[in-house]
Amino acid sequence: MAGGGAARGPIEFYFDPISPYGYLATTQIDAIAERHGREVDWKPVLLGVTVMKVMGLPPLMQTPLKKDYVAHDKNRMARLLGVPMVDRPHGLAPGINSLAACRAFLWLKQADPSLAKRFAKRICARLWAEGGDITAAEAVADEAAALGADRDAVRTAIESPEMKAALKAAVEAAVAKGVFGVPTFIVDGEAIWGVDRLWMVEHWLRHGTWARQR
Amino acid sequence: MAGGGAARGPIEFYFDPISPYGYLATTQIDAIAERHGREVDWKPVLLGVTVMKVMGLPPLMQTPLKKDYVAHDKNRMARLLGVPMVDRPHGLAPGINSLAACRAFLWLKQADPSLAKRFAKRICARLWAEGGDITAAEAVADEAAALGADRDAVRTAIESPEMKAALKAAVEAAVAKGVFGVPTFIVDGEAIWGVDRLWMVEHWLRHGTWARQR
Repeated sequence: MAGGGAARGPIEFYFDPISPYGYLATTQIDAIAERHGREVDWKPVLLGVTVMKVMGLPPLMQTPLKKDYVAHDKNRMARLLGVPMVDRPHGLAPGINSLAACRAFLWLKQADPSLAKRFAKRICARLWAEGGDITAAEAVADEAAALGADRDAVRTAIESPEMKAALKAAVEAAVAKGVFGVPTFIVDGEAIWGVDRLWMVEHWLRHGTWARQR
Repeated sequence: MAGGGAARGPIEFYFDPISPYGYLATTQIDAIAERHGREVDWKPVLLGVTVMKVMGLPPLMQTPLKKDYVAHDKNRMARLLGVPMVDRPHGLAPGINSLAACRAFLWLKQADPSLAKRFAKRICARLWAEGGDITAAEAVADEAAALGADRDAVRTAIESPEMKAALKAAVEAAVAKGVFGVPTFIVDGEAIWGVDRLWMVEHWLRHGTWARQR
């Protein structure tokens, strides 16, 4: 975990489009990495698995006190970062999920990681900046096609056993690395959770140590 | 919630000595407030009530994945802030609680808020910087007496119905304001949760708005 100028691996960026904080991170992490000469490897995860099944916790927007905090906090965090955010004081409508989007992301990433990133940013923006839905395979394929992907191939991939298995494996791999929330950044083995901790990501990228800098 | 130079109320600082992040905040918040000409009103809260009873969540160190994250994170956060932290990879021993400490704090605060702050800092440091215990009334009274308080009066206060009721009321008042975690800072009505968000406290104190500053 040494700092300095040696060539180092990419920043692992774990996101789930279902999270407003994940969306906010999609608008920031590439620029931060670029300033420090680092790549970013985008990895989807499902909060429905990590938070609800593995950790045994209720969804954020069903947690007393915290749900009210988040309803306000996501908006002020968007203002701080200078990006749009729709106001959804009661959270997402029941049934909205990111399964199709995450499968499509993994399929796109196989051939073109850069395209997959642009797709993930669009999906997150559709949900959190524009107030749209991302659940239906049709909507997901629309976004991919708008970026130049083969619409029918995306539709097929979303329902394919291969992509279902790939997403399951991706989530299991994330959990094996200790990822539970979104966004999580893993930099040189250091897992950093939360868009409110981008300053820690920057600190590590700059100094390569947690020792206090004066 | 306007910024600018008008006289404003104190920063409300909610802490529970049981939290390592609460301890870390006790080492920082007064200096931050002083830089901006603000006072800090320290208010104890009990995570056993807010997290477990009101939110219905398990203790942090019994939550899969998160407990491992916190075990490492509290240490690196201490390094970042330049303050000591004992390594407790498995969390606090069962039975450690802050009831006596919080009651003593409220009693001390009635007569001398400044002394109560110094006492709270000592209690947190005893638990998190020195690896001691803070559960027994005897230990709590030791710390208060070392700062000049009347030892027997502290002992009596800890067991008094008045201080038990005062702590209960303090926790209820915190919950009524939406406080769930520790540390929470309320600045001009804005609740900010987490020692990792001291940058947001600073941002608000400096600018009085969440609008992005360029």
